[in-house]
Amino acid sequence: MVNIVLDCMGGENSSQDLVKGAVLALKDKRDLKLILVGEQNEIKRELEKYSFYAQRIEIVHANDIIFGTDEPVKAIRTKKNSSLVVALNELVIKNYDAIISTGNSGAFLAGCLFIVGRIDGVNRPALSPILNGSEGNFILLDAGANVDCKVDDYLQFAKLGSVYYKTLFDKEEPVVKLLNIGTEENKGNSIVKKAYVELSNCNEINFDGNIEVRNIMDEKVDVVVCDGFIGNITLKTIEGTSKHVISRLKGDISKSNFYKFGGKLILKLFSKIKDKYDYKKFGGAIFLGVKKICIKSHGNSNEFAIKNSIDMAYKLHSKNFIQDLQKNLFVK
Amino acid sequence: MVNIVLDCMGGENSSQDLVKGAVLALKDKRDLKLILVGEQNEIKRELEKYSFYAQRIEIVHANDIIFGTDEPVKAIRTKKNSSLVVALNELVIKNYDAIISTGNSGAFLAGCLFIVGRIDGVNRPALSPILNGSEGNFILLDAGANVDCKVDDYLQFAKLGSVYYKTLFDKEEPVVKLLNIGTEENKGNSIVKKAYVELSNCNEINFDGNIEVRNIMDEKVDVVVCDGFIGNITLKTIEGTSKHVISRLKGDISKSNFYKFGGKLILKLFSKIKDKYDYKKFGGAIFLGVKKICIKSHGNSNEFAIKNSIDMAYKLHSKNFIQDLQKNLFVK
Repeated sequence: MVNIVLDCMGGENSSQDLVKGAVLALKDKRDLKLILVGEQNEIKRELEKYSFYAQRIEIVHANDIIFGTDEPVKAIRTKKNSSLVVALNELVIKNYDAIISTGNSGAFLAGCLFIVGRIDGVNRPALSPILNGSEGNFILLDAGANVDCKVDDYLQFAKLGSVYYKTLFDKEEPVVKLLNIGTEENKGNSIVKKAYVELSNCNEINFDGNIEVRNIMDEKVDVVVCDGFIGNITLKTIEGTSKHVISRLKGDISKSNFYKFGGKLILKLFSKIKDKYDYKKFGGAIFLGVKKICIKSHGNSNEFAIKNSIDMAYKLHSKNFIQDLQKNLFVK
Repeated sequence: MVNIVLDCMGGENSSQDLVKGAVLALKDKRDLKLILVGEQNEIKRELEKYSFYAQRIEIVHANDIIFGTDEPVKAIRTKKNSSLVVALNELVIKNYDAIISTGNSGAFLAGCLFIVGRIDGVNRPALSPILNGSEGNFILLDAGANVDCKVDDYLQFAKLGSVYYKTLFDKEEPVVKLLNIGTEENKGNSIVKKAYVELSNCNEINFDGNIEVRNIMDEKVDVVVCDGFIGNITLKTIEGTSKHVISRLKGDISKSNFYKFGGKLILKLFSKIKDKYDYKKFGGAIFLGVKKICIKSHGNSNEFAIKNSIDMAYKLHSKNFIQDLQKNLFVK
């Protein structure tokens, strides 16, 4: 049985979508058990609609919530009855396989570090979303867990990302590139230049030089490495710009003659493409380098996003992802 | 007479658009003289179409070109007969007022530093493009001249940007924000956190905290400060994402029923909005902190972009911008 814990509180939506997503996932997989952590009456009320899966669902009560505005580390330390802290403790104490949360990102990362812990040899676990470029999916890491990085961290990100990509997308020797402001070897700030040298000298990864951030959504690449500050800047700029462009286009179009005969259709196309840039809706971002499969889904996840995250966790567990990381990654 | 030097070679287009833009600008302004530097026969051939402005145009011959692929510092040192080096020397030796180039950005910055020189007290001049957000124009600096910055540099960028914004847009006490991954005071990497404190303690600027990069195109702000690596990452991500989103939308739309009755119209709207995100087409980016008005226009500038850059240089000169910087900026 694969056991996955769901933190059902702290997201922007009620637990309704989480429960719906959970039921969708259970339908697919006969050896999946889900542990739903949160306000038990609310969860029960939702679950009543889908009682036929009850034998593979367990509810663990938690009556406190870590809000988006809470200071992450403080919240983890003081809100012991929050759904997130209770869920993380369940994961560790019962030796379950994975956790998914839609709550406060900072608190999730802090909680995973403190309660789940790092894999031996990993200095800085990295937040690793999957982005959907025009040449396919790629991983960006670190996307925000470590705002100050050393050269060694880049190397670890490259190794972690390679094992992850290989497991998730069944590709041997994923192509790793370094996020930069140009493709030439001598581009970048001082730490990025040093990282380039280290990455070039590493035999364990398939390093293919710099990727210019301008082309990140359009170039063939599997794993893009950068420090967490740059990664977060990049991710948020992609999100912000895509929303901004679409909203301006909508504005221009609504003022044009165009609108009156095709308005609804085009708005539908727009919202479709907007979702492509919201990495958080895309299966969730894994926190790579901790001892369990820990996935952060968007606070605004609908049932399909939740199901995607569960499917991802299930797949990674089935392929012994964590053991693979522990075994292969830091043995020289 | 206002004397502005135009480097007519090294851009992606021929000198045709440059000459056309020059003529447009001369038409507007009776006290403007333009010094066109480049292959004289080519420039003359173009100019013949507009001979009536000949008395306010001077041609200075230069037969070498710094290409986009040339290593910037080396090119400035060795290509003494290149249009850029000749143009910069004209600017300094004849004490002209401004220079505009569409060539190799790195070479332009290096040339301005070596040949024009920094204003006394300025540590690191900053590349400062104007971006057109939904709440109006704002300046982003440094956008790429300094990939490794110290805390003091942020303060200088804020002061330089404020004087520049004030001069260009006639606004007292422009609002300065610090580019970051969140709005809270404690957000960012270690240097950004320190910069926040320094900026908060400075009475000479109107600092208003962090701006989250996700909202940079949609928030009311006048001057956004960051280090040159982050700024360049941000700028290129904005450009790359907007192109990518538009190209994907085009793809989706061309496959839809929509296309057959409104295809041309929508493509026109798309190219209009795409231009909004190409900062390099927008009047050019000034290199702030050197002793002359030095403006980098996009390599692909058309005649209107060239005219915009000339107009900008003319306005700044008329308002004694450089003297203002020298007088007010670094006197305590």
